[in-house]
Amino acid sequence: MAAMASLYLKTSIPTPHSFPKLQKIHFTPPLALPTHKTRPATRISASLIDPDGGKIVELFVKQSEKESKLKHALSLPKITLSKIDLQWVHVLSEGWASPLKGFMRESEFLQTLHFNSLRLENGSVVNMSVPIVLAIDDAQKSRVGSGTSVALVNDKGDVVAILSGIEIYKHNKEERIARTWGTTAPGLPYVDESITHAGNWLIGGDLEVINPVKYDDNLDRFRLSPAQLRHEFETRNADAVFAFQLRNPVHNGHALLMTDTRRRLLDMGYKNPVLLLHPLGGYTKADDVPLSWRMKQHEKVLEDGVLDPETTVVSIFPSPMHYAGPTEVQWHAKARVNAGANFYIVGRDPAGMSHPLEKRDLYDADHGKKVLSMAPGLERLNILPFKVAAYDKTQSKMAFFDPLRAQDFLFISGTKMRTLAKNKENPPDGFMCPGGWKVLVEYYDSLAAAENGRIPEPVPA
Amino acid sequence: MAAMASLYLKTSIPTPHSFPKLQKIHFTPPLALPTHKTRPATRISASLIDPDGGKIVELFVKQSEKESKLKHALSLPKITLSKIDLQWVHVLSEGWASPLKGFMRESEFLQTLHFNSLRLENGSVVNMSVPIVLAIDDAQKSRVGSGTSVALVNDKGDVVAILSGIEIYKHNKEERIARTWGTTAPGLPYVDESITHAGNWLIGGDLEVINPVKYDDNLDRFRLSPAQLRHEFETRNADAVFAFQLRNPVHNGHALLMTDTRRRLLDMGYKNPVLLLHPLGGYTKADDVPLSWRMKQHEKVLEDGVLDPETTVVSIFPSPMHYAGPTEVQWHAKARVNAGANFYIVGRDPAGMSHPLEKRDLYDADHGKKVLSMAPGLERLNILPFKVAAYDKTQSKMAFFDPLRAQDFLFISGTKMRTLAKNKENPPDGFMCPGGWKVLVEYYDSLAAAENGRIPEPVPA
Repeated sequence: MAAMASLYLKTSIPTPHSFPKLQKIHFTPPLALPTHKTRPATRISASLIDPDGGKIVELFVKQSEKESKLKHALSLPKITLSKIDLQWVHVLSEGWASPLKGFMRESEFLQTLHFNSLRLENGSVVNMSVPIVLAIDDAQKSRVGSGTSVALVNDKGDVVAILSGIEIYKHNKEERIARTWGTTAPGLPYVDESITHAGNWLIGGDLEVINPVKYDDNLDRFRLSPAQLRHEFETRNADAVFAFQLRNPVHNGHALLMTDTRRRLLDMGYKNPVLLLHPLGGYTKADDVPLSWRMKQHEKVLEDGVLDPETTVVSIFPSPMHYAGPTEVQWHAKARVNAGANFYIVGRDPAGMSHPLEKRDLYDADHGKKVLSMAPGLERLNILPFKVAAYDKTQSKMAFFDPLRAQDFLFISGTKMRTLAKNKENPPDGFMCPGGWKVLVEYYDSLAAAENGRIPEPVPA
Repeated sequence: MAAMASLYLKTSIPTPHSFPKLQKIHFTPPLALPTHKTRPATRISASLIDPDGGKIVELFVKQSEKESKLKHALSLPKITLSKIDLQWVHVLSEGWASPLKGFMRESEFLQTLHFNSLRLENGSVVNMSVPIVLAIDDAQKSRVGSGTSVALVNDKGDVVAILSGIEIYKHNKEERIARTWGTTAPGLPYVDESITHAGNWLIGGDLEVINPVKYDDNLDRFRLSPAQLRHEFETRNADAVFAFQLRNPVHNGHALLMTDTRRRLLDMGYKNPVLLLHPLGGYTKADDVPLSWRMKQHEKVLEDGVLDPETTVVSIFPSPMHYAGPTEVQWHAKARVNAGANFYIVGRDPAGMSHPLEKRDLYDADHGKKVLSMAPGLERLNILPFKVAAYDKTQSKMAFFDPLRAQDFLFISGTKMRTLAKNKENPPDGFMCPGGWKVLVEYYDSLAAAENGRIPEPVPA
């Protein structure tokens, strides 16, 4: 098990003194279907939710075959992977997208675009809402020629993987963007980063990873695979796992929610619900707080006792971020099912952002949870929508927003938080634990220094 | 039963002299699922495919309640329907979109946009790929206020229907367009006609039709409802029904395909496969041949013996046309399942068109049949993709294109056909039956006359 979780297991468990009973979270089971609640069983390991397709598909080459596969790879046409491509290789290799066996072929790509799901050979349906595809250009395509396999290499030319049984098909970027984001407006971060300048072809096939993707950023130990996470949950005797996806610093509103969720799961009869606090580690847009700083902030939050380390596993989700709202939230949830989560917490406007051109949010704030609750292939997952938390001035702490006394609440937006941290001002008492806030101040400090021409120091995680 | 079908039953059956054995049609069962073939049964009526949701949902008010419903409607806020809105009322009222009970509420709209399908209360899934929605503007919304029902009226102010249990939600046009068409390029015909200038709200609810939609164009007798079509197929002892959607004049390539399909169904063991020749009768773009002319042309094709009237039912499909390619072809197929068809013929680039801005087709020519074959809720339907037919110069007739002797074939595009008809030239012998061609020449003649300031004569159907 990774260092952070172990570390916190050793930390003494603080009393959650600052979280009195609050308004109930509204629990909604998936619409129109009976809920398949996981019943606490004698053998706890049996109670983890099954991964999509029944088992986790890991795509690593066996140790004994590494040498021969590497030799074979060196004889194949090479495709150099971008940073984001490598993140997808990572995602695929560990089985987050199980039962996907590699970059999508056209039939998978089309099903993803049109149905947000894949039909398996046995007729069952799994969720799959974002295309996991590899683009190549005309020159690369002609280099591949009539070959059936290619070698995937990193920017240093080192072989990472083999893609075999390949299929090359058209990369209709406009259609991909329109169907994934529901807009084609210029300025979508993932599109600018990874699609606009990508090649006009997609290459799908079966992936065999020879050298697992590592980042050497002192955070690899937090990058637990779905299989490792499942092992960890079993070790902890979890009989329910609730996942919280985030790509922002944790404030006390988040903490309130997570603590309250555990309480409610206990009320429902679960004996040991475990939280998977699962920050996204792949590509994020430029104005998001970088992973290394977020991890440092999360560490402080746990150290400060805002969350109970005994029942919390902190790990990094290796996927890049699409900012595709209701489409992407399904991917975020599905991947966590594969890691053993049977409860998924979904907030306001998940994976959303501002419209790149218009003065409004790109997505309706409620669509994410609505779409998630109806998504094909996610019927087994219990969706936990949560009410907005805001700063309750009457209690000097974060609380679930009560529209009946709206005037008592203060909404601290990301922009507001950034402004405060940049100015080294403190947020209202009780908004975020002091240690966590200090990390944020340091981050914006380093950013200001960089803007003044100084290189920011790397953050030790 | 409608006049045309009856008429042709009385016509003597010509020998199909011009259709020798040709290349086999490639029959593909829905991917990855066992095919559920309808077995010929003793009671033929039992062999028709079940409608989606188990029964056809007709939304007409009972005769005995008409008066009271009308009185009630007159007390409600009014919403005036556009021509296309009325076509959707028609579609909904007869159960083409079963089990939909009215204009979509938000949960149905979202499922349609994201999943091209709806999950029913019992957990089963039906296909639903195009939004069937009713837009209202701010003024109409405020007129509805907190009411729970509205009256739907035509442009003369006559009450057509009541919409009750209403839900009003945002009409995000950009997202609707992007997810339905896979592009937001200006110039999509349905968008220009029905979305761009529509209101910013959608109103969903349960539809009760007081006055069924009629067009008084001498073609109403061809507008058979799904229930009427099912009755007709049962009367004819059909043990398989194969549907052919079209919005163009029928040429001998189409006829070849339909005849060949019947032959193949007989080879498969069916005793009496019946063709549903099902021209689309709702909104079409300006350069398509209008319905009245197409019906006249279809009539000639049957009179000329190109299709066997004994085993052909000609009827009008009341839906408007989206030109949304792979998304729309699912709707075209699903609606025909509701009318009793268990086989659906799908061609190259169904419901496709040119990209409004770029010099290419909007959709990949193969995506329609691929998406259709994988579509959720259509697993029961047998998809019959067909090879392209072209004019075989060596045989002086339409034949399935053989790429091994490409030079022998002549492709007669829509543009080419139009140019010939406009110039009153004849197409190559064997391209279309002379009676059918004559109708087309007359149509373009009337168009030229109209362009010269004369009003074209209405076409007696």
